[in-house]
Amino acid sequence: MSGSTFGKLLKITTFGESHGGAVGVIVDGVTPGVEITLEDIQGDLDRRKPGQSDVTTPRAESDTVQVLSGIFKGKTTGTPIMLVVYNKDANSSAYDDVKDLFRPGHADFTFFKKFGHRDYRGGGRSSGRETIGRVAAGAVAKKLLERRGVKITAYTKRAAGIECENIDFDEIEKNIVRAADPVAAKKIIDKIIEARNSENSVGGIVECRITGVEPGLGYPVFDKLDADLAKAIMSIGATKGFEIGAGFAVAEMTGKENNDEITKDGFKTNNSGGILGGISNGDEIVFRVAFKPTPSIGLAQDTIDVNGNEVVCETHGRHDPSIFPRAVPVVEAMAALVIEDHYKRQAALHA
Amino acid sequence: MSGSTFGKLLKITTFGESHGGAVGVIVDGVTPGVEITLEDIQGDLDRRKPGQSDVTTPRAESDTVQVLSGIFKGKTTGTPIMLVVYNKDANSSAYDDVKDLFRPGHADFTFFKKFGHRDYRGGGRSSGRETIGRVAAGAVAKKLLERRGVKITAYTKRAAGIECENIDFDEIEKNIVRAADPVAAKKIIDKIIEARNSENSVGGIVECRITGVEPGLGYPVFDKLDADLAKAIMSIGATKGFEIGAGFAVAEMTGKENNDEITKDGFKTNNSGGILGGISNGDEIVFRVAFKPTPSIGLAQDTIDVNGNEVVCETHGRHDPSIFPRAVPVVEAMAALVIEDHYKRQAALHA
Amino acid sequence: MSGSTFGKLLKITTFGESHGGAVGVIVDGVTPGVEITLEDIQGDLDRRKPGQSDVTTPRAESDTVQVLSGIFKGKTTGTPIMLVVYNKDANSSAYDDVKDLFRPGHADFTFFKKFGHRDYRGGGRSSGRETIGRVAAGAVAKKLLERRGVKITAYTKRAAGIECENIDFDEIEKNIVRAADPVAAKKIIDKIIEARNSENSVGGIVECRITGVEPGLGYPVFDKLDADLAKAIMSIGATKGFEIGAGFAVAEMTGKENNDEITKDGFKTNNSGGILGGISNGDEIVFRVAFKPTPSIGLAQDTIDVNGNEVVCETHGRHDPSIFPRAVPVVEAMAALVIEDHYKRQAALHA
Amino acid sequence: MSGSTFGKLLKITTFGESHGGAVGVIVDGVTPGVEITLEDIQGDLDRRKPGQSDVTTPRAESDTVQVLSGIFKGKTTGTPIMLVVYNKDANSSAYDDVKDLFRPGHADFTFFKKFGHRDYRGGGRSSGRETIGRVAAGAVAKKLLERRGVKITAYTKRAAGIECENIDFDEIEKNIVRAADPVAAKKIIDKIIEARNSENSVGGIVECRITGVEPGLGYPVFDKLDADLAKAIMSIGATKGFEIGAGFAVAEMTGKENNDEITKDGFKTNNSGGILGGISNGDEIVFRVAFKPTPSIGLAQDTIDVNGNEVVCETHGRHDPSIFPRAVPVVEAMAALVIEDHYKRQAALHA
Repeated sequence: MSGSTFGKLLKITTFGESHGGAVGVIVDGVTPGVEITLEDIQGDLDRRKPGQSDVTTPRAESDTVQVLSGIFKGKTTGTPIMLVVYNKDANSSAYDDVKDLFRPGHADFTFFKKFGHRDYRGGGRSSGRETIGRVAAGAVAKKLLERRGVKITAYTKRAAGIECENIDFDEIEKNIVRAADPVAAKKIIDKIIEARNSENSVGGIVECRITGVEPGLGYPVFDKLDADLAKAIMSIGATKGFEIGAGFAVAEMTGKENNDEITKDGFKTNNSGGILGGISNGDEIVFRVAFKPTPSIGLAQDTIDVNGNEVVCETHGRHDPSIFPRAVPVVEAMAALVIEDHYKRQAALHA
Repeated sequence: MSGSTFGKLLKITTFGESHGGAVGVIVDGVTPGVEITLEDIQGDLDRRKPGQSDVTTPRAESDTVQVLSGIFKGKTTGTPIMLVVYNKDANSSAYDDVKDLFRPGHADFTFFKKFGHRDYRGGGRSSGRETIGRVAAGAVAKKLLERRGVKITAYTKRAAGIECENIDFDEIEKNIVRAADPVAAKKIIDKIIEARNSENSVGGIVECRITGVEPGLGYPVFDKLDADLAKAIMSIGATKGFEIGAGFAVAEMTGKENNDEITKDGFKTNNSGGILGGISNGDEIVFRVAFKPTPSIGLAQDTIDVNGNEVVCETHGRHDPSIFPRAVPVVEAMAALVIEDHYKRQAALHA
Repeated sequence: MSGSTFGKLLKITTFGESHGGAVGVIVDGVTPGVEITLEDIQGDLDRRKPGQSDVTTPRAESDTVQVLSGIFKGKTTGTPIMLVVYNKDANSSAYDDVKDLFRPGHADFTFFKKFGHRDYRGGGRSSGRETIGRVAAGAVAKKLLERRGVKITAYTKRAAGIECENIDFDEIEKNIVRAADPVAAKKIIDKIIEARNSENSVGGIVECRITGVEPGLGYPVFDKLDADLAKAIMSIGATKGFEIGAGFAVAEMTGKENNDEITKDGFKTNNSGGILGGISNGDEIVFRVAFKPTPSIGLAQDTIDVNGNEVVCETHGRHDPSIFPRAVPVVEAMAALVIEDHYKRQAALHA
Repeated sequence: MSGSTFGKLLKITTFGESHGGAVGVIVDGVTPGVEITLEDIQGDLDRRKPGQSDVTTPRAESDTVQVLSGIFKGKTTGTPIMLVVYNKDANSSAYDDVKDLFRPGHADFTFFKKFGHRDYRGGGRSSGRETIGRVAAGAVAKKLLERRGVKITAYTKRAAGIECENIDFDEIEKNIVRAADPVAAKKIIDKIIEARNSENSVGGIVECRITGVEPGLGYPVFDKLDADLAKAIMSIGATKGFEIGAGFAVAEMTGKENNDEITKDGFKTNNSGGILGGISNGDEIVFRVAFKPTPSIGLAQDTIDVNGNEVVCETHGRHDPSIFPRAVPVVEAMAALVIEDHYKRQAALHA
């Protein structure tokens, strides 16, 4: 209700600002007795952390996670799991020159309007560091889903005008932009470096595929599985669009083209993206999300300051020239949380 | 939690099946003392009701709304408003020949998997008639927003490959597909009639514009205003995509192109669609939603029956050859509910 | 959130005022495929309805329930069940003389302060008629619990200073005050008639016993089973206290006296009332609830009117001289809703 | 939903076990811009901490609170406040001899049944240490209420058969049992020491008084202010009863006796306890809560072990011989959270 809690039966609450003491999450409602290790959680955090490559911010954070509750002798207890990452390299002095102005494309202006003040240090609560809590919680959800045979894979599908034509899951973690096609990956990396060198940034599209989901998850009428996925994904910063299956292309299609006919062996096509009437149909769930270019760019931009004066903004902090490569594990995390939540809801319905 | 309740502070719960006794909604959390008439509610229901034109189903329903509680002497009391529409033309015999098979593109298969049975009469709870409750509740929300100067307008933006080039709000209700451009409207209508005549259907994109929203609505981190809009809109049946502002086009843009620079007079551009960091920035909120073609088509399609046998499905019921024209008021309703809810939440935050 | 919705996984939303068009409830989250008849629901409503006996209001309402959705061919569908009772004998003219004053002991004053106005007709939303929705929903919950072997029995335990010494469940429905002891019942009835004849009223205590609940229901730390029962029961109008097991008597006990020792055959005593650490222990759940005397009395009372003038209030409407006899099925209903909800939550936790 | 989150608009989520790394709370929905110091929070924690006196456990914990987010430059930011207390004196070896048996009166048996295992170290999540998060969050709520002129005072009202006859708020913190009457305090202390010396424990009743609450808080029909208080209070461990105003005594009263007549200057009496129809009436809110004797006693008790064998339990750990003295700030904290939440809800209703 107050904005930092997500989920119904598997519920997470995140906390923390970019340059505060720590960021983290409480995960509540976890099935007791499930084996989980720190490495399970750290692995996904490492995919999200800064400083991984040339196309990410050089902010030096190891993002080492600690467990403060809810896991005992290597197993979940069923009580809240508290996961925390202490901020180390919180150099807020870098933000002194922008503390009174509203950076275009950032939440500076809107946070100021909402709260009547703002934490100017790296965006405060609007920082991408908040997603550490999501990824840590998502790693827990993935462990729960592993028992069910559910597998979630996200990757860069398109960026800077370049599309991955051939999707190969094995390629994803082999390139620094997490593109599923090595040829496209190389081109995208070139575009990002070109943008970075000209103090600019690029946007992209992440695709997510989920296999092994049993049919029947999702609720009529409001808590449709795709509606809950849309909310989860659009709650990630910098997202501007969500589509499932054929997505926006349905506007060009007829019913005959769009309908997925059914045989004994399953659906002939998957324009639905694995969800019909808001309920999983057992087919692969496929959705895409659009990430805007990083708003932090070095190029001069017009803006105003907190007193309404027109000023020029040039931000030379430690920023990623593209958001989507590090957003890939965040997308997976949010999807995992939604799917696991709906497994629990389905169990409750039939209890 | 159980799927039929939406909203946090302005909360609605819908009920009803296509061919049951009635459909309707309870609206709770309404500001007391606000004037509202039956006509306010009936007006939007009339825009949604069947039988309006050549491109909608001929099912004969007046969809006359009744108020059973919560309004006293022409004003809201602050207690739950119960709005009900009794089903009249519930001719379920038309569904006898499809009652044992799963219509492609429909929720038949997934409802069966979820609930272990299904109400085959017109889709039961998955029917578009469920949106009557949403539209009635949305009309209440619109009255509340009227006090704040908020105006919500949705219209057909694109369908069957035809785009509205010139948006003119005055044109929307003048054509039967609710396109905002009379030239495009005519072409779209032709396409729909062509599809209907060949027992097929077409998809489309609805755009929604909201003016007068104060800056500051929406919450970091999960209850972002765009995330809540995405959930609300994607909970409408037949939707396959949601995008805000520049939407999926951001994948082709640089930060310099995408960032909306700020002057004393406001934002120079509106690629953000009126929301930054999940919080309204005072600019016009603009989003689009993709509706798939009506799955009910007369053309023969392969499918299976409840026993797993392969059969051919041909549905000749009373169906719309396109969903989006009647979905326009539903989109407005859901948007109104989200915006009003967030006004209340913002008031609570600062209380 | 807005006050008229209760429950997490089995969720009910009630609506309706004393003298509006109807009262009723939407029950969402019901297990699909469970057999239920109108008689199952009507039976409990008949125990709650007015005009049953000399000690209840003569308002003539048959309180006949209708099902508008969610039940198909005698079974629950898993979608919202809408249950409605239309108001028949809504003679609001009887309230004309009290419409501008605040009746002592009633919610008149506080509704006026909360909403800025009030529906003076029979208390509007604060009327006991609102509990029709609860009882109808509770009947559904009881059907779900029946499958689990859970049995809920409430009865008058004490009233007007008279205690039921020997609890005999078979006696409860044999007397008009639903006392579990025929000797006490007779004395209580005499006291109530005496009070009614002197235009006064009496209070009482209802006890509720629940058998067959499996151990493990209820959550640390906030959603303890007894905390949820307390909320459910204290949400019934006119309640002033809730206690479980030994209740307030624990203040006089030592740990040695209060602790329930455990043997192979179960707990030696049941001071806990069947709940330890907020979680059911498999023993009988026993709680008590205090109902104040009906505030509507004929005796003259000092009060003020809406303009702040001091006036004398004498209410000669159609009122019960005691609330508790008709509250017995309401207590059972709320308990049933809580227990069934927690069964579903426990299933979700372990899913 | 998952048990560790409380509140609607002012929402808290607690975490932590008795012998884990830390205990704490995230407080979300806090009004931005409110001044708050660490001392404000630490002050209440010091009233709750162990080792305060002869009648509390000697476990040595300073319970020093740290703020990890949500407060910036001495003011609330409006984003989640994370408060943590690291466990220091977590000597879990003391629990080795009870790790396989179910201590009577404790949650050992029910946690085992709920979760399929248990954290035997000091009760794990069922430990009273969990209330540290509540008290820290309550201190934040109290700061918010301070702006409104709301004052919450709890104290021991009765224990071990001894009643406080003369309530004097100034006496409460002057004695180690927080009794509001110095004469009674002395007697109660003697009783507790006597119980402790005989390896036994005693129960008690805490009363809470809240002044300055505006009329109008609380919702019909389920979220009555007293129902929400009942839930909040009964969610504290070891509670067995809750009553408001005249409480259980109403069963002995007539309507004429119980009704609070109204004059220009307010209510003549306060049998309602400040709440009518679930809504505050502006009068003092008065409720009482019964705490059972500490279940941990040294005296031998029959029980069973995890294998079902009958054994004798003697627990000689570091325990309080009475719970209520340290529970006083917990009661205040929960009351503060409920009242502040309802202020926010009332603001939202009228927004």
